[in-house]
Amino acid sequence: MPDDDHSAEPLAPLYSPDRLHRAREATARAGLDALLISPGADLRYLTGYDALPLERLTCLVLPADGDPFLLVPALEEPAAQASPAGDLGIEITGWNETDDPYALVAARLSARTARVGVDNHMWAEKTIAFRAVLPGAEQELAGGVLNELRMHKTSQEAAALRRAGAAIDRVHSRMDEWLRAGRTEREVGRDIADAMLAEGHVRVDFVIVGSGPNSASPHHELSDRVIRTGDPVVVDIGGTTRDGYCSDSTRVYAVGEPPEDFRRLHEVLLRAQQAQTDAVRPGMTSGQLDAVGRDIITDAGYGPHFIHRTGHGIGLDTHEEPYIVAGNPLPLAPGMAFSVEPGIYLAGRYGARIEDIVLCTEEGGERLNRTPRDLVVLR
Amino acid sequence: MPDDDHSAEPLAPLYSPDRLHRAREATARAGLDALLISPGADLRYLTGYDALPLERLTCLVLPADGDPFLLVPALEEPAAQASPAGDLGIEITGWNETDDPYALVAARLSARTARVGVDNHMWAEKTIAFRAVLPGAEQELAGGVLNELRMHKTSQEAAALRRAGAAIDRVHSRMDEWLRAGRTEREVGRDIADAMLAEGHVRVDFVIVGSGPNSASPHHELSDRVIRTGDPVVVDIGGTTRDGYCSDSTRVYAVGEPPEDFRRLHEVLLRAQQAQTDAVRPGMTSGQLDAVGRDIITDAGYGPHFIHRTGHGIGLDTHEEPYIVAGNPLPLAPGMAFSVEPGIYLAGRYGARIEDIVLCTEEGGERLNRTPRDLVVLR
Repeated sequence: MPDDDHSAEPLAPLYSPDRLHRAREATARAGLDALLISPGADLRYLTGYDALPLERLTCLVLPADGDPFLLVPALEEPAAQASPAGDLGIEITGWNETDDPYALVAARLSARTARVGVDNHMWAEKTIAFRAVLPGAEQELAGGVLNELRMHKTSQEAAALRRAGAAIDRVHSRMDEWLRAGRTEREVGRDIADAMLAEGHVRVDFVIVGSGPNSASPHHELSDRVIRTGDPVVVDIGGTTRDGYCSDSTRVYAVGEPPEDFRRLHEVLLRAQQAQTDAVRPGMTSGQLDAVGRDIITDAGYGPHFIHRTGHGIGLDTHEEPYIVAGNPLPLAPGMAFSVEPGIYLAGRYGARIEDIVLCTEEGGERLNRTPRDLVVLR
Repeated sequence: MPDDDHSAEPLAPLYSPDRLHRAREATARAGLDALLISPGADLRYLTGYDALPLERLTCLVLPADGDPFLLVPALEEPAAQASPAGDLGIEITGWNETDDPYALVAARLSARTARVGVDNHMWAEKTIAFRAVLPGAEQELAGGVLNELRMHKTSQEAAALRRAGAAIDRVHSRMDEWLRAGRTEREVGRDIADAMLAEGHVRVDFVIVGSGPNSASPHHELSDRVIRTGDPVVVDIGGTTRDGYCSDSTRVYAVGEPPEDFRRLHEVLLRAQQAQTDAVRPGMTSGQLDAVGRDIITDAGYGPHFIHRTGHGIGLDTHEEPYIVAGNPLPLAPGMAFSVEPGIYLAGRYGARIEDIVLCTEEGGERLNRTPRDLVVLR
């Protein structure tokens, strides 16, 4: 069920015409004639409209030298008008079942349109349909313009991410209510999902409960495995809050006393995650931040078992720029929010991952997740 | 939370190498050198793998003249192997964080590759990345090949859609447990969503509870409006079952006695929906089927208030071909499954929509939803 909770305070500060103005300026600077934005985080970032992804075309057209307009299926026009997009003073036009919405967009664009930026998540059937009606226009990615804007969070966006972080922290802090020997990962996962909705999320995006050997599979989700005494359990959970910003936090639990060498693995991982979070500074590159934790884990002999990047940006998408990955030359800057989630995985035995969302500030990294990172032994 | 319920009978009959064989033959017939399939219903149709949509590339490559292979992020390889795709005897290869997966695909394709079919739902960032590594290849839509296959359901797929229809029917048949005056649409919607999961769905795709004037907005979802005595209520709900096939059914309720002229509107709508379902025959066009109901509604004076097409195909996607819309020359054929859902909407007052999924057979239309279509008055 989509996020359509209008019960709390208005979202006006988040969705202001300012984002459209800045996107339009950036579009012009990039030498693009227009952006074509489809349902998803980009559309929500620019207008606040959490549109359903449909086969019918919904498209925000943002010309570099004209006024933006939102073309929606006639059926969706009431929903679009009722969304924050309805308060932005932009034209919202509905198209009818037998119209060709692509031709409608092309007719509105300048005949001199030579370069358009298409939404990074636009479906190929729409990308190729636009190519057909705009044969003279070279298609590039709107992300080239928008990722830079979305990557630098405003103070209101940072506040929204703090609320999301506090919401998922409340769920982790209740883990002893659900995580017990004798229950299956799926049973525990359902309780966690219910709690996520009760604790400030409107959508459950993912619930990973990796117990025993499943803790060694980073993207394991839920299974019918029965959790046993002594199992390490990796719980990685995230959802979407009412205003669209996402949460994502991982903690490591043990149901009863875990193996001694698992305690050592966790201690190394904790040192690495702490060092990376402490190291966050404006100006250091994403690749350098990845190396901080990788070096510690490698020195401890676990290097080959840290098999993924350190983290991903987060905002209106759970995964967005910046990606904290080896070789990424992108310098960190105040306002960037990303996960710091090193992991160590011993295939077939067990693994662990500790994850906080970190906001880069002038002074360094601000953790948006605050629950204890130590190995939590539940008895 | 993704569909990862492995507790019931195996899905082997649904996901067999036969689909890959037929897709490969159709790819060759269409003169395409390869299909590039990303996460979504096409990938699930061909392999049974319900992959997460990620920024990292997951792609099934289906060459017209070679063996198919599935390229996945190394992190996802265990999940891909554990899915039905792992039993199809196709190569599943993981790529590492610092690899260029697009280059890996290009290197495996013939240097003579001139035309590729990209998944209709492939993200633009992936479509454009493939264009960069395959500059000589014209991109078309894989749907040109796959929609024809997916549109004609096998007997196993028809059985899966019957199970989905029975699952959503069980939810509609319990509506009197939740739908009462004094409750909000959102409260009722949450109970319905819980019941959908309890009654054979693994994912809730949408819950529309349109009460009073909200019943006149076809794509209204849920609001905090308190349902009042005398309100007509349109309940349009659908979810995904364990094996991936979708349900979708709409019924019209009244909480206490509705206005007399609403009863007349509903009676006209019921006649139209009944006539359309009875009219389904192989060989008639989708456009002709749309007209059957539209004529009845127009003759009754409600023509301008039937503001959407009659229906959409359904299978692994809730909305897929065939679309039952004015002017569509596509002839219906045995094995096609689609919704028949005429509606009448009096803006600001009330509206109604009655929807069944109908399977076209040699003999005519088989309804996959069986709950009563009459106006159900709850007291």
